[in-house]
Amino acid sequence: MIRRFLAAIVLAMLAGCAAQPAASQGQTSDAKVILIIADGMDDQQIAIARNYLVGMNGRLVIDGMPERVSARVRTVREDDPALPDYVGDSASGATAMATGVPVSEGRIATTAGTDRDLPTIVEMAMAAGLKTGVVTTSSITDASPASFIAHISNRYCQVPEDMVKVDEAFPQDSTDCSADFKSSGGPGSIAEQIADSNIDLIFGGGSSDFDAFIDGVDSMTVGQTALANGFTILRSPEEFSDAPRDGKLLGLFASGHLPEKLHGVDGRRAEFIEHVDGKPVWPEPFECEINPAFEGAPTLVEMTAAALDILGEDQGFMLVVESASVDKAAHYWRPCGHIGEVAQLDETVGLALDYAKRNPETLVLVTSDHGSAVQMVPQKTDLWLQNAAPPGRFARILTPEGGLMGVNYGSNDSPFWEDHTGVHVPLYLAGPRAREVPQFVNQTDVFHLAATHLGLSDSWPGQ
Amino acid sequence: MIRRFLAAIVLAMLAGCAAQPAASQGQTSDAKVILIIADGMDDQQIAIARNYLVGMNGRLVIDGMPERVSARVRTVREDDPALPDYVGDSASGATAMATGVPVSEGRIATTAGTDRDLPTIVEMAMAAGLKTGVVTTSSITDASPASFIAHISNRYCQVPEDMVKVDEAFPQDSTDCSADFKSSGGPGSIAEQIADSNIDLIFGGGSSDFDAFIDGVDSMTVGQTALANGFTILRSPEEFSDAPRDGKLLGLFASGHLPEKLHGVDGRRAEFIEHVDGKPVWPEPFECEINPAFEGAPTLVEMTAAALDILGEDQGFMLVVESASVDKAAHYWRPCGHIGEVAQLDETVGLALDYAKRNPETLVLVTSDHGSAVQMVPQKTDLWLQNAAPPGRFARILTPEGGLMGVNYGSNDSPFWEDHTGVHVPLYLAGPRAREVPQFVNQTDVFHLAATHLGLSDSWPGQ
Repeated sequence: MIRRFLAAIVLAMLAGCAAQPAASQGQTSDAKVILIIADGMDDQQIAIARNYLVGMNGRLVIDGMPERVSARVRTVREDDPALPDYVGDSASGATAMATGVPVSEGRIATTAGTDRDLPTIVEMAMAAGLKTGVVTTSSITDASPASFIAHISNRYCQVPEDMVKVDEAFPQDSTDCSADFKSSGGPGSIAEQIADSNIDLIFGGGSSDFDAFIDGVDSMTVGQTALANGFTILRSPEEFSDAPRDGKLLGLFASGHLPEKLHGVDGRRAEFIEHVDGKPVWPEPFECEINPAFEGAPTLVEMTAAALDILGEDQGFMLVVESASVDKAAHYWRPCGHIGEVAQLDETVGLALDYAKRNPETLVLVTSDHGSAVQMVPQKTDLWLQNAAPPGRFARILTPEGGLMGVNYGSNDSPFWEDHTGVHVPLYLAGPRAREVPQFVNQTDVFHLAATHLGLSDSWPGQ
Repeated sequence: MIRRFLAAIVLAMLAGCAAQPAASQGQTSDAKVILIIADGMDDQQIAIARNYLVGMNGRLVIDGMPERVSARVRTVREDDPALPDYVGDSASGATAMATGVPVSEGRIATTAGTDRDLPTIVEMAMAAGLKTGVVTTSSITDASPASFIAHISNRYCQVPEDMVKVDEAFPQDSTDCSADFKSSGGPGSIAEQIADSNIDLIFGGGSSDFDAFIDGVDSMTVGQTALANGFTILRSPEEFSDAPRDGKLLGLFASGHLPEKLHGVDGRRAEFIEHVDGKPVWPEPFECEINPAFEGAPTLVEMTAAALDILGEDQGFMLVVESASVDKAAHYWRPCGHIGEVAQLDETVGLALDYAKRNPETLVLVTSDHGSAVQMVPQKTDLWLQNAAPPGRFARILTPEGGLMGVNYGSNDSPFWEDHTGVHVPLYLAGPRAREVPQFVNQTDVFHLAATHLGLSDSWPGQ
């Protein structure tokens, strides 16, 4: 992050104030946006989850939303931002939605190539006196939540000790965020930037990142800085009811990411297919069940309900909600994992739609940052293909309605993770402006739409 | 096909006539439907084609259509039609759209398990005195076109000699359509059923199927039957201008399928990645170019223009148009092939939209029968994944804007073909009723929507 941060954001705010476009169009300060992101959720993910959760004839809550358009993911190359990089990540996808600008993979609200800070929709809302919140099932320092509230060149600079790291075995994991060290006058790591922010509430996992010592001061943790900056720290959802309504809330409900809702019976996930005498041994089908680690853990809908209760109904706000582990389950070949996280998303969308019914000035947006390389394929290769089988990891899921669903992960043979894809993603809408959105937009239009609805810009419709 | 064919269709027609729902709702007989199907086209296919054809900032014609919803593919099991089969084929997908009924894979407008004929939208339009047409880049006896005009239990019963076949090596390729032999009093193979039909025009490939002798009569070919039944046979697009406007036209412009528009330079397609010393040798990127076999061949837009010209503007019609080889190119790992066939689709959609602008009673529907296991993935695996690479077939496509796009086919390691997927497919709409279609429907709703617009039923909105 270049040190021009404050100047840039103040200028952006002034520009926004000078134009005052939405106010002049009759927007009131009670305009609200609930942006719900399912990380890594594309149409394949939705179709797989739908078959499992509601069956061949059922409908998810998102299926009943009034509008659904497609949003093109646009990512650019760091070495030449004029050139496309057709497949993005959570950092570039969330940054596009948070700032309206396509960037390169790994960047958190900073420009590709030039590392300038980009004002985010949450910061703009804050500066305009609206309330703000971020809720996620990941660590709150993870790329998607971070892109709305922090600015740094590398998503892995989550805590001070990770800001400069040379990893010879995994060079791509190396970081150099040294320009942003607090001790060099910078804003610090993502955790430090969150602790220094004025967001009204931020809920999720990642407490261990707030136990880290802040850069340059060995006696003070990032969490202690947050307290000093006026945050109340919540450690369990039981504390929601007593949380102060007029201060800043930092909810840290797990050391890292929150647990996934579902997992395969016996922990089963997709696996490479063995061959015996040249013939594939088809893996036994399995069902999904509640992940024991999920019992008692805060759910996305519970955190979102608390957030909506705390933000209230009287004042405008920008709330970002993320079902983060659709992506993580896909990376690690856990079909029940991503099915369950789409279920968490869907339940939360239902809550948001109920809120929007009572508060019709609420624009509800449901979308994703990028696709995942997960596909619904035949549960067994056709007989006429003889001994052919999927060459990657594969699972056969027994659905509650008695169907068998093949779930395939075939982008990558690494032991580490499955890839993203570059497909356009769904964008579901309800509320003001939903009807006027054309069926094909850019992911950056999420920013333009939200900013315009909140009266922070008049950049919608974007190009 | 059960012998109750005629009785069933007459009853269905009578039922349609008795209700006369659309006429009573003010429909006029000039209502028109242009249903454009891209076989095997899902959102991945569209995103890949878009990047190549118009680039990261460009828009396809379909991207600019007024509405786009998603259509769930519903396929059932032949052995128990109450159970889902989550991945369908062109026969079940086209039958769902042609008849409004979900069936099992391989069936052409007949019910799963019970093999009863299902009246199709084309037959219903014909019976109601509307004009009808089918245009495809495949053989006209292929599953998708056949599902609108023929009824048989197995899509491979295209000509008499294929109606009973035992294939020990590929048992799934075996057929038994013996109940439908003409010599047993049945309607015969798909080619024979087309030759006996009253469709106004049917254009595509597949002339060799019409050189076959009809069942039971060794001296008469299927094509000769067509002539006897009043068809004029066209062999090249040059004949369009002189074709009679008041008779039936059978356009047979290739022996089998029509050639694909694009292919990889040097015929390149996706390939398995070799490894040397445990490291992947990434395939050289390649570009697409015009397939030499395509030069001079009839194009989809040319055939569709002729069809629209012949059907005219005064009378209502049901026209089905198919870009068939999006699917075929995906099955055989030809990325340039499916990109080019999406281009053919897109150009044809432009033509249909122009027609609809002049004839506002025209409902234009653009959709697909099922997804394909093709994905846009990173053009190289990230460094930190070290020596990982896609385990299936893979291509790196150099786009005209200077990007590199990874196209992955990872569902299957067979030397025969890549699989379909069970994802819901896009349904783009323009014209009357387009706005009233919810964002998530079933594929069978294509039938209900078209039939209701044409005044043949009032079954829209379906369940």
